[in-house]
Amino acid sequence: MVTKLLVQNIVRTKTSDIPENVKLHGKRSLLNWMGAAIGASTHPSVDMVLALKEDINSADQVSIFGRTEKVDLLLGSLINGMSSHIFDYDDTHLDTIHHPSGPVAPVVLALAEKMNFPGEKALHAFILGCEAELRIANAVYPSHYQLGYHITSSTGVFGAAVAAGLLLDLTEEQMAWALGIAGTQSFGLREMFGTMTKPFHPGKAAQNGLMAALLAKKNFTSSTEVLEAKRGFVNVLAPEHDLSKVNVQWGEKWELLKNAFKPYACGIVLHPSIDACIALGQQVKADEVERIELAVNPYVLELTGKTTPPTGLAGKFSIYHTAAIAFLEGDAGESQYADSKVNDPKVIEFRAKISTKVDKNIKEEDVMATAYLKDGNKIEYAVKNATGSIKNPMSDQDLARKFTKLTHSIIGGQHANQLIDIMYKIDQLDNLKALIKLTKSQ
Amino acid sequence: MVTKLLVQNIVRTKTSDIPENVKLHGKRSLLNWMGAAIGASTHPSVDMVLALKEDINSADQVSIFGRTEKVDLLLGSLINGMSSHIFDYDDTHLDTIHHPSGPVAPVVLALAEKMNFPGEKALHAFILGCEAELRIANAVYPSHYQLGYHITSSTGVFGAAVAAGLLLDLTEEQMAWALGIAGTQSFGLREMFGTMTKPFHPGKAAQNGLMAALLAKKNFTSSTEVLEAKRGFVNVLAPEHDLSKVNVQWGEKWELLKNAFKPYACGIVLHPSIDACIALGQQVKADEVERIELAVNPYVLELTGKTTPPTGLAGKFSIYHTAAIAFLEGDAGESQYADSKVNDPKVIEFRAKISTKVDKNIKEEDVMATAYLKDGNKIEYAVKNATGSIKNPMSDQDLARKFTKLTHSIIGGQHANQLIDIMYKIDQLDNLKALIKLTKSQ
Repeated sequence: MVTKLLVQNIVRTKTSDIPENVKLHGKRSLLNWMGAAIGASTHPSVDMVLALKEDINSADQVSIFGRTEKVDLLLGSLINGMSSHIFDYDDTHLDTIHHPSGPVAPVVLALAEKMNFPGEKALHAFILGCEAELRIANAVYPSHYQLGYHITSSTGVFGAAVAAGLLLDLTEEQMAWALGIAGTQSFGLREMFGTMTKPFHPGKAAQNGLMAALLAKKNFTSSTEVLEAKRGFVNVLAPEHDLSKVNVQWGEKWELLKNAFKPYACGIVLHPSIDACIALGQQVKADEVERIELAVNPYVLELTGKTTPPTGLAGKFSIYHTAAIAFLEGDAGESQYADSKVNDPKVIEFRAKISTKVDKNIKEEDVMATAYLKDGNKIEYAVKNATGSIKNPMSDQDLARKFTKLTHSIIGGQHANQLIDIMYKIDQLDNLKALIKLTKSQ
Repeated sequence: MVTKLLVQNIVRTKTSDIPENVKLHGKRSLLNWMGAAIGASTHPSVDMVLALKEDINSADQVSIFGRTEKVDLLLGSLINGMSSHIFDYDDTHLDTIHHPSGPVAPVVLALAEKMNFPGEKALHAFILGCEAELRIANAVYPSHYQLGYHITSSTGVFGAAVAAGLLLDLTEEQMAWALGIAGTQSFGLREMFGTMTKPFHPGKAAQNGLMAALLAKKNFTSSTEVLEAKRGFVNVLAPEHDLSKVNVQWGEKWELLKNAFKPYACGIVLHPSIDACIALGQQVKADEVERIELAVNPYVLELTGKTTPPTGLAGKFSIYHTAAIAFLEGDAGESQYADSKVNDPKVIEFRAKISTKVDKNIKEEDVMATAYLKDGNKIEYAVKNATGSIKNPMSDQDLARKFTKLTHSIIGGQHANQLIDIMYKIDQLDNLKALIKLTKSQ
């Protein structure tokens, strides 16, 4: 009955049932997602997946954001879904470590582009797709994640199918089949983290979920009890689970409101240190500093203890590099993690001034930073609830700045600004043509 | 090291290392697979998946066997892989309940068609793809299957990647990545059995595995330890496993030799009863029979106890219908499971004469059949090792008859015969053009 009730909830929720604050947060999620997708669109791994276009002679149906090429509906969902996760700079539902937009947004935008859907319908499908996958994630977290599944793809495939199914106006029976065809394709091993296959996961989940909905629309049959069946999703993929979380307080409580946006292009455990070092950098100059000590939870150092990162990507796992560039440049965006940055003598010199101290009494989301100055003075800066956490979310201005930073060199500053404006009005658009046009590389 | 060793075994095995009897059984497997694929190619579910061609404007690259349409490489692998499993009439590796050709053959034939590979290379890739997936299946069976995975797709994705990877001449590093990209996509819930999504599994595994190899060829990176890693394939998807089975006696022992072909279009537990009733039907006429009693293992009746099947598909789960048509028509092919057959008054009348008796002392693969005649006589017929089992395999003549029966109405009897001949010579062909041409519907 869990699957059936979820299907009813999904299909019967009208756009007018979705509160305005949820719609606004949906638009923010789409904007943040688009920035991450465009920002990584020139990455070599995108070129590789895009080369499949030639292998299969894929048709020019939908846009690859941040580029000029077009590909078919299914390949487009894969590529855009992958791009958005390459920098690990997308959104996070902290309760489940889920990146909800990744598998859903590319499907919604591809279908809307190809079939000329109005923006209101697209936003509606996006919000409900995210809501469905996050509720399913709630039901299987943490055992499913601990077992080794990348929850973003393994539950994201449901979100993609729901969003596509809503755009395709599936009946309730068809929507149940779509969930079945999607759910049987649940996949994604955490073993892949650190390789190109990690961002491949949300992209492939998008593609699989879209195909599920396309097939269900043609009355391709499947189980109608994929979530709860004896050999269905939760029993096979989650040692412990609580299916009551799937439909609880549907329409009253919105998981999407818990979706947080990263201000910095690295794991969230580094965000408090970045906040602190940016603040210190605004108070003193680099040559006034003798050293900076960061007191952190032991777990932070376990994850980010690399002292001499050889590449920009490795720099994301170095609290030393990260603190240095945050102090020196006042930011920790993708450009602060370029390969050239970790090898910049100025950065290396300042990196040597960063020291760490582990303290079990400091929470993972906090830091106690102390700058010891050459003149004998010291400045202390404590961070609780780093920028981008649920209690201290990025402002819409922060989000806009992040978006521009990621996209301006690719689509141009003017189009970046126009894209921000239009994304907040997506539900007023008759179709997405103008929006999609702004995503092209210049 | 398990993955690395498997990769070395795969890449370093030359065609001359494969014994002749393995090559011959590979050809039989391909022939049997092609018959199942062509036979089901007009099924409504094939029309539905083929309708994706229009959704994505798929290019005319490769053939759909038994039809005239062409689609792109990836979609073609999906459709042909699905067709071959629709009738549940394909091959079976009994040790693991695996249908090895399903995910591998469509990839090999699609790539060979598009890239004009010689038949010897195609057969080589097919055999090693099957060998790899069956050895991985050995390592996780039975816990993986019992947990709820459809082992044909969940391990078949590796076989598809291996076969495609060999055709694409991947380096060892690339082949390891291909296994990684494939293995992270392992999927398939047994909950889907009884719906169109079951045959979708091997088709989608074929498609996923092919994409994995195509990406690896472009140096798309992945884990190189997908099988054994802490959060890799066996630890996440199989509660119990024995990785030593993956590489044991590579090149000496061939799992593909254990691949069996079904003479009848239903589950193997019914095959002894069919053998018996065909034999009885050759000895007496229907109106001479008062009743036929089949003494079977309790498990047989548990699976096939339907007394009045409403459809042909349901007839496959009815020992009563199956025994009746075997007696009356001397066969139990797909045409004996047409909807019209289960509703044919003559069949229904004879079905009423079939009775069953369970006997724990009779093995699942055996039957003790007794025909009680109207004249007071009785004929007993015991079956041990039904036709199609490893100990009593179908002869090449049986296999040819099965192939013709499945395909003649679609591709014509003459082409069916030519296709049988050419399949046994596949390794002498410069390319597969002539072979593929014979698979088209007339």
